Amino acid sequence: MKQSGPARLGISGFSGAGKTRLIEQLLALLGKEGLRLAVLKHQNEPVQTDQPGSDTDRFYRVGATVLGYDGQAVFIKSHQREKLNVEQAIERLGSGYDLVLVEGFKDSDIDKIWLLREGEKTAPEEVSNIIAVLEWSEDRPQQALAVLRKWRQKQANMT
Amino acid sequence: MKQSGPARLGISGFSGAGKTRLIEQLLALLGKEGLRLAVLKHQNEPVQTDQPGSDTDRFYRVGATVLGYDGQAVFIKSHQREKLNVEQAIERLGSGYDLVLVEGFKDSDIDKIWLLREGEKTAPEEVSNIIAVLEWSEDRPQQALAVLRKWRQKQANMT
Repeated sequence: MKQSGPARLGISGFSGAGKTRLIEQLLALLGKEGLRLAVLKHQNEPVQTDQPGSDTDRFYRVGATVLGYDGQAVFIKSHQREKLNVEQAIERLGSGYDLVLVEGFKDSDIDKIWLLREGEKTAPEEVSNIIAVLEWSEDRPQQALAVLRKWRQKQANMT
Repeated sequence: MKQSGPARLGISGFSGAGKTRLIEQLLALLGKEGLRLAVLKHQNEPVQTDQPGSDTDRFYRVGATVLGYDGQAVFIKSHQREKLNVEQAIERLGSGYDLVLVEGFKDSDIDKIWLLREGEKTAPEEVSNIIAVLEWSEDRPQQALAVLRKWRQKQANMT
C-alpha cells in the first residue's frame, strides 16, 4: 500500500494474544539496529498520564493542550474530540521515525501481523491486510523480526 | 517580534510567584471565549506520565516514542536528547492553536508577563521582552487578561 511518512505495521490480535509483550521485545531488538521507533496504542482503558493535581493536569482539565518538558522527556496531552485514525495519529507523532508499530486500530487497513492466542488456529476474516499469522510460541520475536525485515525490504522496493 | 505559528506569551516569574495558578485562571477565562489554547511547561521536576509498568510506559522505557489514545485524550511521550527551545516545543504541539501560554523557558525571547512575588518590587533586568509586570494581588487574572488583549491586538495589527 502506498503511503507517506514512516513505515507503519500493525501488531494485532485479540486481548491476551501477547501484543504488548511482542511489541516490547521488537522495540528492544530494532532499537539495537539504530532504528528510530514509535508506537501507537489505541487502548480501552483511560489514558493515565500526570498525577492528578499536577500543574500539567490542571491545565489539561481546564481544556488546554499541555506540553511538559523536564529536560529529558517531552509529553503532550491533548483533548481529542473526533475519532482519531492511524494516519492522523502518525501525523501527531511528527517526523523522524523509521518505523511505527501500531497496537489496536484493528479496523485500519495498514499491514498487520496477527497474533493467535493459545489454542487459536486462524485469524478472523474481517481483519484486512494481514501479512503474517504467528502462533502462540516462544519464538515470536524472531519470527516477527523475519516477517518485518522481508516486509520492509518489499516496501523499500516499492518506493 | 515576527514569528510563524500561534501567538505565544510567557507567564514568568520566580518560583512561588503564582504562575501556575494564573495560567489556570487565564485558560478558563480564554477558553470561554472559544480560543484554542495550549500550554508549554518547562519544569524542573521529572515529567510524571504513565503508571510505571503500563504498556505505554514499557514501550517508552525501551526507547520508543509512544502515542496513547483512549478515544478522548491523546498523549505522546518522547525522549528528548537535545535541549528543547520554545520554537521546537511549539512545533511539537502541531497546528490548530490560537494562543500558547509558556511557563518556564525564561531565557527565551518571547514576550512575557512577569509576576512579582509578594514583597518583590521589580522584575530582574536580565529577563528580556517583559511586556507587563504584575504585582502580587487578587486582581491578576483580570489584569493579565487586559494586557493579553492589548498585546494580541497589537500582534494582529503587525501581521
